[in-house]
Amino acid sequence: MSKSAEEEHRRKAFGWAARDSTGVLSPFNFSRRAMEDGDVLFKVLYCGICHTDLHSLKNEWGNTVYPIVPGHEIVGIVTEVGQKVEKVKVGDKVGVGCLVGACHSCDNCTNDLENYCPKTVFTYNAKNYDGTVTYGGYSDIMVANERYIVRIPENIPLDGGAPLLCAGITVYSPMKYFDLNKPGMHLGVVGLGGLGHVAVKFAKAYGLKVTVISTSPNKEKEAIEHLGADSFIVSRDQAQIKAALGTMDGIIDTVSAVHPILPLIGLLKSHGKLIMVGAPDRPLELPVFPLLMGRKIVAGSCIGGMKETQEMIDFAGKHGITADIEVISMDYVNTALDRLAKADVRYRFVIDVGNTLTNAESVTGRL
Amino acid sequence: MSKSAEEEHRRKAFGWAARDSTGVLSPFNFSRRAMEDGDVLFKVLYCGICHTDLHSLKNEWGNTVYPIVPGHEIVGIVTEVGQKVEKVKVGDKVGVGCLVGACHSCDNCTNDLENYCPKTVFTYNAKNYDGTVTYGGYSDIMVANERYIVRIPENIPLDGGAPLLCAGITVYSPMKYFDLNKPGMHLGVVGLGGLGHVAVKFAKAYGLKVTVISTSPNKEKEAIEHLGADSFIVSRDQAQIKAALGTMDGIIDTVSAVHPILPLIGLLKSHGKLIMVGAPDRPLELPVFPLLMGRKIVAGSCIGGMKETQEMIDFAGKHGITADIEVISMDYVNTALDRLAKADVRYRFVIDVGNTLTNAESVTGRL
Repeated sequence: MSKSAEEEHRRKAFGWAARDSTGVLSPFNFSRRAMEDGDVLFKVLYCGICHTDLHSLKNEWGNTVYPIVPGHEIVGIVTEVGQKVEKVKVGDKVGVGCLVGACHSCDNCTNDLENYCPKTVFTYNAKNYDGTVTYGGYSDIMVANERYIVRIPENIPLDGGAPLLCAGITVYSPMKYFDLNKPGMHLGVVGLGGLGHVAVKFAKAYGLKVTVISTSPNKEKEAIEHLGADSFIVSRDQAQIKAALGTMDGIIDTVSAVHPILPLIGLLKSHGKLIMVGAPDRPLELPVFPLLMGRKIVAGSCIGGMKETQEMIDFAGKHGITADIEVISMDYVNTALDRLAKADVRYRFVIDVGNTLTNAESVTGRL
Repeated sequence: MSKSAEEEHRRKAFGWAARDSTGVLSPFNFSRRAMEDGDVLFKVLYCGICHTDLHSLKNEWGNTVYPIVPGHEIVGIVTEVGQKVEKVKVGDKVGVGCLVGACHSCDNCTNDLENYCPKTVFTYNAKNYDGTVTYGGYSDIMVANERYIVRIPENIPLDGGAPLLCAGITVYSPMKYFDLNKPGMHLGVVGLGGLGHVAVKFAKAYGLKVTVISTSPNKEKEAIEHLGADSFIVSRDQAQIKAALGTMDGIIDTVSAVHPILPLIGLLKSHGKLIMVGAPDRPLELPVFPLLMGRKIVAGSCIGGMKETQEMIDFAGKHGITADIEVISMDYVNTALDRLAKADVRYRFVIDVGNTLTNAESVTGRL
């Protein structure tokens, strides 16, 4: 049986993959799908390392298919476009975030909320409609339909911009949807990591008063002097919590470890909103009475749709918002993941894929 | 020392009170405050029995001051008004719900949300600003500032209308605030008791599709044939839950016992809202991942402001909504409370105070 046209035209790609739940990454040859009329092919220059990569590599959510090429904060330069592509042209700076597909016919898709479509195709460790596995951005090239391609504003450096495609939209979207972006509002940000530090930047750009809530007293100086937060609360300091009770319009909670939310609900004003964007793997304790007494909300939010992701990065461009990053070479990635597991990064690792994924030929030769 | 003018003018009142945490009620002489310019005095004709009465009588929330006269679903006829009262006149049908005071200067009060004012004065078992204790509607007369007086529409029978002042507003307010009152929406109602059955009626009046979710399969016929619900789910029937996953825009959860909310979150569509109006005394288990995946909300709501309470009862008048009640005499109240504790009522007891609280003279004589 001869190869199908599709198979004939698959694009050879090279990246780093984990083969098992040790999560250790090593060089890996694979194929991207053949280009379709609506597709964009781009050379990957940078890819951010998200906490999700770590969970997936080690199969902590039990759904990992190996080999897995992670990475969903992917930026680069367009090298080829399909015949029907209108959004970008060769040479443009573009990115892909967490999504590369959805059904495009459900209510969510119709309302530009592909992220909540039940048939969402994630950028890696998922199945495309053609049955092929999706591979992420720890690799040399990326193919995606233009709907999932984000144009990166000229003034956004690609390395610091990459994490916005996941961390950025994850905190931006709930600020908008839950009306927590009105100047003068008081927003709490729980956890000062990859998501939290970007949340502070967006909130300040919106003109909010921002209080960082963290378990680490040693992050106070950084939060206030460097990121521009207005105040800082050590989450285990009862006196500090007590002094701030009932003062916040909303809280973006980025912590994915199990933690108490009663104090956070207490920090909210009446009608305040606690938005969870981290996903603890066990249920939290929800005290109902304090919710009732102040008509308070606990909600979840998960990334954002493609239209909003474009809006987010345009807003970031306008306000000069990028992530604070540590750029690493591809062969440092396993060390970086170990450090990420210990929260030893300020605040996001970004792999310099374009300059350091250089051994494709030699590895190909070996296979 | 002579009595103050205030003391001189206090109104002698008579009702039934509990003296200790047995919660047993018996006749009780007390005083209402002297009438002020903005006050309305009315003869109590009916008073609903709310689950809160039971909790308070038995000091289950640890804050009961004895003797306690419960009752916050109070209706009657105006017999006297202060000089500045504009809202009602002698002979009008009026009611008082859960509140008789608030600060009137905070953001909540300014926005007609006295129910969320931190200085709310509850109708019974609370302290008035003059230091006197508030007593509820299991009594012959009631005094309240006109702000807390609700005009009862002519076509609402006073007995079936009384429970609307607590049960009605408790379910009406969140339907409005959380945008769950648009025709064609699908609303779940958890628990078919005093609150739940009224929630079904309001939801049907708004043109919603209503599904009752209950632990009691034997309530299905009643829910559908009598109350007009569109469908019924037995909450422990996994197949029924599974068949309805992702179908509801919102859920009003009236259950005050500890119960699992994971299935309820599952019943919601993306962006759906689970509104708790019952107050379990221990925290519930909150699974965060399902909230994130659908941008879902778990919120609390507590009665409503006075403007909205008037709006609710006017809406009830327009749509002929009253509570389904069992009218009892005052001397049956202890039995009724026992039955309420066993959920043995469809769906609300209402005391016929006007016709059955008749032994005031003899008791006064005994004291």
